[in-house]
Amino acid sequence: MSRVVTLTGGVGGAKLVLGLMQICPPEQITAIVNTGDDFRHLGLAISPDIDTLLYTLSGKANKTQGWGREGESWSFMDAVKSLGGEDWFLLGDGDLALHVLRSHLLAEGETLSAITARFASAWELGLSILPMSDDPVATHLTTSEGDMPFQRYFVECRCAPEVEAIRFEGAERASATAGVIEAITDPATKAILIAPSNPWLSVDPILAVPGIKEALAVTHAPVVAVSPIVGGQAVKGPTAKLMGEMGLAVTNESIAAHYADVIDGLLVDERDDASGLTIPHDVTDTLMKTLADRERVARAALALADRIAG
Amino acid sequence: MSRVVTLTGGVGGAKLVLGLMQICPPEQITAIVNTGDDFRHLGLAISPDIDTLLYTLSGKANKTQGWGREGESWSFMDAVKSLGGEDWFLLGDGDLALHVLRSHLLAEGETLSAITARFASAWELGLSILPMSDDPVATHLTTSEGDMPFQRYFVECRCAPEVEAIRFEGAERASATAGVIEAITDPATKAILIAPSNPWLSVDPILAVPGIKEALAVTHAPVVAVSPIVGGQAVKGPTAKLMGEMGLAVTNESIAAHYADVIDGLLVDERDDASGLTIPHDVTDTLMKTLADRERVARAALALADRIAG
Repeated sequence: MSRVVTLTGGVGGAKLVLGLMQICPPEQITAIVNTGDDFRHLGLAISPDIDTLLYTLSGKANKTQGWGREGESWSFMDAVKSLGGEDWFLLGDGDLALHVLRSHLLAEGETLSAITARFASAWELGLSILPMSDDPVATHLTTSEGDMPFQRYFVECRCAPEVEAIRFEGAERASATAGVIEAITDPATKAILIAPSNPWLSVDPILAVPGIKEALAVTHAPVVAVSPIVGGQAVKGPTAKLMGEMGLAVTNESIAAHYADVIDGLLVDERDDASGLTIPHDVTDTLMKTLADRERVARAALALADRIAG
Repeated sequence: MSRVVTLTGGVGGAKLVLGLMQICPPEQITAIVNTGDDFRHLGLAISPDIDTLLYTLSGKANKTQGWGREGESWSFMDAVKSLGGEDWFLLGDGDLALHVLRSHLLAEGETLSAITARFASAWELGLSILPMSDDPVATHLTTSEGDMPFQRYFVECRCAPEVEAIRFEGAERASATAGVIEAITDPATKAILIAPSNPWLSVDPILAVPGIKEALAVTHAPVVAVSPIVGGQAVKGPTAKLMGEMGLAVTNESIAAHYADVIDGLLVDERDDASGLTIPHDVTDTLMKTLADRERVARAALALADRIAG
């Protein structure tokens, strides 16, 4: 059985995996998911990128806001506010089920990967969803407004502070989840895709887990990134702003340079100039608005991988 | 400032306290609440009797079902079911706020009494709500279907098993919450009311906390119980069934005998024969359907206490 492995963060990554699900049987797909955004809120264990993937693949994702569930109700938040509880991070009523059950099972000693597999199985998703690690890794940012964990930067501060440095606390002591290294180095793996998630905030935490970068270097499977840049901008989130703050041009060359020792190819958007790229690349419309868009991008990424494999 | 102290369980007790709130300034009222029903569900700390009191006094209680909030939504339970989680105990979306915040604050080291005071203050209830103890006390029943904790008997088994014995695990090691003994023995306390909650399941756990029964014995304030029997039956819940299983007649004499070393008087319903009672008693319509009913019962109980005080 041939396999496709994807390294993925939030919304953009979930869309690419959904595109893959239109092409490949789900049992051939392994998604390795960023957990650097994971945090505790009101005592609950929240894994934003895993949840975005679960909601997107099960058809439950809110299509306009990019997080949470479609048709969500908000009785919990209303009651929390009336009790004077923290309300900067919104937890929908239905969304709470994942967090409450995950927190409960973690407290009982189950691993994040076992819990994630349990959820994916309950919703009959079929693919393998692997948190990058069962050990805690927490993305922290040094900013113009001080040091802050990811969610404070992303949600509470709406990415407004200027970012000076990013670190992944705990990464050097973390172990890749069982199955991650195996999936990357499996001779049956025909392509490894890096989703168009934020390279610095969503993909780098995965690459920071010891062994993953090394596995990507030794695998025979071509590693293809889908560029998060579309028409000289990031589709969503702080990627372009962050690149500016790091002194980088918002170009595919910057993306290619960032992934230089990791990828074998880069899929770029047709709106952008790819003439300066020195690595194998391909061009398509990478904007993923419809399901057909997602399938097209997944197909193009797999085709580039095929071409590189020769 | 004169004070009124109430020992209370669930719905019936909350109705009596709401009646008291119509008569006395809230700052003169202290409710000592049963926590023997408290339990952990999906990792969340649930205090059913405290919550019933909070919802009833804040006008949020569901008026027909006797637990939970009016106008509740159920997105959380739907999602829990879809994930294969336990669904025998219903947690409404708005209701979850109390449980999530309480669990979080307990984990941070706050006491149940401090948390309860925080909630009562956020909802501007004005009275003093004291959990009987900050230490864990768990009501367990020996039944025809084996040993079971209270919620399994009450909710999952709908009180169907025959009860052979009741015990309050941890009670002998528990300390009364700060303020409980003081409220009972305060010279300013003019009446101590025992609500028409189940004497064996809801009031006995309070009396089992070391020091409370002793304080009731030494206080100068008259202790008046409102009988849970109305027209030879219990208004709600398993009181009558339980009395039958314990070989007791469902009469006010049985209630008076049960509370013999605790109460100075008993308020009974006008439908029932009170001729066999040898302790001071009074008769009124004790069925509490409307707010006026609740006020009437509270007034009658206070009047009986006044009469006993002489």
